[in-house]
Amino acid sequence: MRLSRYFLPTLKETPSEAQIASHRLMLRAGMIHQEAAGIYSWLPLGFKVLQNIEQIVREEQNRAGAIEMLMPTLQPAELWKESGRYEAYGKEMLRITDRHKREMLYGPTNEEMLTAIFRTYCRSYKELPKILYHTQWKFRDEVRPRFGVMRGREFLMKDAYSFDIDEAAARRSYNRMFIAYLNTFSRMGLQSVPMRAETGPIGGDLSHEFIILAETGESAVYCHKDLVDMPSPGLDVDFDGDLQALVDESTALYAATEDVHDEEAFMKVPEEKRLSARGIEVGQVFYFGTKYSEAMKATVTLKGGGEQAVHMGSYGVGVSRIAGAVIEASHDEDGIIWPMAIAPFKVGIINLRQGDTDTDAACDQAHQVLENAGAEPLYDDSENRAGAKFARMDMIGLPWQLIIGPRGLKDGVVELKERATGERQTLSLDAALNLLEKQCVRSE
Amino acid sequence: MRLSRYFLPTLKETPSEAQIASHRLMLRAGMIHQEAAGIYSWLPLGFKVLQNIEQIVREEQNRAGAIEMLMPTLQPAELWKESGRYEAYGKEMLRITDRHKREMLYGPTNEEMLTAIFRTYCRSYKELPKILYHTQWKFRDEVRPRFGVMRGREFLMKDAYSFDIDEAAARRSYNRMFIAYLNTFSRMGLQSVPMRAETGPIGGDLSHEFIILAETGESAVYCHKDLVDMPSPGLDVDFDGDLQALVDESTALYAATEDVHDEEAFMKVPEEKRLSARGIEVGQVFYFGTKYSEAMKATVTLKGGGEQAVHMGSYGVGVSRIAGAVIEASHDEDGIIWPMAIAPFKVGIINLRQGDTDTDAACDQAHQVLENAGAEPLYDDSENRAGAKFARMDMIGLPWQLIIGPRGLKDGVVELKERATGERQTLSLDAALNLLEKQCVRSE
Repeated sequence: MRLSRYFLPTLKETPSEAQIASHRLMLRAGMIHQEAAGIYSWLPLGFKVLQNIEQIVREEQNRAGAIEMLMPTLQPAELWKESGRYEAYGKEMLRITDRHKREMLYGPTNEEMLTAIFRTYCRSYKELPKILYHTQWKFRDEVRPRFGVMRGREFLMKDAYSFDIDEAAARRSYNRMFIAYLNTFSRMGLQSVPMRAETGPIGGDLSHEFIILAETGESAVYCHKDLVDMPSPGLDVDFDGDLQALVDESTALYAATEDVHDEEAFMKVPEEKRLSARGIEVGQVFYFGTKYSEAMKATVTLKGGGEQAVHMGSYGVGVSRIAGAVIEASHDEDGIIWPMAIAPFKVGIINLRQGDTDTDAACDQAHQVLENAGAEPLYDDSENRAGAKFARMDMIGLPWQLIIGPRGLKDGVVELKERATGERQTLSLDAALNLLEKQCVRSE
Repeated sequence: MRLSRYFLPTLKETPSEAQIASHRLMLRAGMIHQEAAGIYSWLPLGFKVLQNIEQIVREEQNRAGAIEMLMPTLQPAELWKESGRYEAYGKEMLRITDRHKREMLYGPTNEEMLTAIFRTYCRSYKELPKILYHTQWKFRDEVRPRFGVMRGREFLMKDAYSFDIDEAAARRSYNRMFIAYLNTFSRMGLQSVPMRAETGPIGGDLSHEFIILAETGESAVYCHKDLVDMPSPGLDVDFDGDLQALVDESTALYAATEDVHDEEAFMKVPEEKRLSARGIEVGQVFYFGTKYSEAMKATVTLKGGGEQAVHMGSYGVGVSRIAGAVIEASHDEDGIIWPMAIAPFKVGIINLRQGDTDTDAACDQAHQVLENAGAEPLYDDSENRAGAKFARMDMIGLPWQLIIGPRGLKDGVVELKERATGERQTLSLDAALNLLEKQCVRSE
């Protein structure tokens, strides 16, 4: 993509309303534009990141056997009256009246709706187990939306729902999502720590939050230090196999969010391993048994006769929030440092002298080659001076920068800079393009 | 995908509320589930179709040089007060009040919001031309939502917006979208006819609707018969070149929707070429000049000094509606007939005797081979009898059916049926898999 054809409205000044790095950098890098409190447009660069995050979440959901669908943003109030949550949800629920005076709401989550879909079509134990998910915009009318997309009102969430015959089977579904989440965040370059958590308005008695440690995190968390560099299970896990041992491994050491923190248990962790820190929640999994299926009569016939309310769980990933969380975890004074997997473009081409025939030709060639190879280049073909181009490229944080200028070309070389390390190397254009193809094109 | 792991709740009975074929078939094929009047969940099979449609629209928008982003579903009322449409839009606009009593609305379209984004960042003629688009859920509170997803209230639309320095340049952007639309619909197996149309609440004086002829269409349309089999421009069009001749070719013959129909002009069409029919609108393009940019002060500085309100157009494709429109255009008594490009799966594997060792093994093999090749198979591994499997496969309308049974296997053969023609051929499993890979895997 040529910058002259793109829409990348970067800002020179730091917007005063932004209190944390991710919010500041998303505004400065031209990723988002605020439309109302906690409601954002995703400008082209931000949208690409959002798409990349959504796609990784999707691939790992599918790998774990979950089936994708899509529920609408608006829901009829009746469903929530059935479960008893219509009143309970309070002012965070955005309530709407349509032209025929019907009570609607903008969905904050979808337990009721999917339970109602399930009961319409599934009547037998033979239909189980099932995990269904969607990625859809939700709305929670926070009193004080803040931190950009980290605590927005309209936000994108992946939410999955599992249906099983009993608690043991439901636990297997829970484990599938648990392992899928560890892999999901790991693919995005995030080290997530699963922690015991409160179930809150979802209900149930088993829940884990997946936490990214970051100073600007909203919650206090407590865990054993070894969890912070525990490797993820890996993409070759057999999701049809028994995952309990893997889950046990990830939950054996102490890890809890503030709400369920047990100081006594924490004190049993060796002192040098005790970590009390701040964290950002990027996902949460719940097992809540028959809470919704009983209230809403989602039952199946049993093999030996009789009926059983299905055991359910739900599993959320904060897709739009992750864009901010990754930046909190990966930036420096100069700007964002994108992990390759979710970088909006993989390499930025910097033309040091726009208008110089040879330099323009070399940049055009690099752009063409990288685009054809699927290396997703962004070519800064603007008239700006080199300093401004460097600063902007550093700020938007693409993993690689390919720097091409007339002086280097005379010696037959270009420069390649890795954003994360700042390391620069001088090499021929061909060698640089080869290296970039290897680094930037996703192999499958 | 194995049916036993999928969620495909097909219905045997025809739902009484469905008046047209597409609505009936989408319900029966387990594609959608109604949540409220004009609001649907997209069940897994329907969601795959929706994704395929969205992806084709996206590819053709990108090819034409439009840049993707994403605006939120909710909008602040202020924007619409600036343009003067807040009152004008009437009861079709879903108005919402948040917890702080701020007036919001669920966006029915995004002219105001994108004009406001543009004016925030773009101040110079150098930023032009620009075409930005997004694919997002919209809401229009229809008095009488009907025909399933064809006239829903919550619907998915791709809407693009162009910004240009003057009318001539704006016309070039209009032409880009015009040609992109012809290609877009053609790739979905739809023959669209561009027709002069009213501009309605969007405003402006130049507009075309892209119409699919269908008996169940909501609008009366009038056109020259030759337009009905005019080939699309093709994907190798140079979008940076002059597209006027191509557009002229597609608009030279008479074609108009009811609202702007000119009986006198129509009578000049040779009688045997006069076609008066019913049509489904799948897209519409508008040029409306400075209507929004003047009201909302979206101006740029000119090269020679001075300021100019930008010339704008907007361009919509009814992504969710197209799922219904394709079915209206392509079905028979037995069910849907998907064009390959948007089929949810490309081939259905029918196991004629589930439980028979050899047949199960052959089906497993076929499933594995086709899945690895990217031919997107759906394997009916249920215990149902053959007749029920055939009927369901015909109803959900996958382009190919691979039928494997013990009798054929004894002779070393399987059967391959093409859904559109009903033609069957008997051949070895290897030959069948080879043929399916050629037919079903998208080459690029």
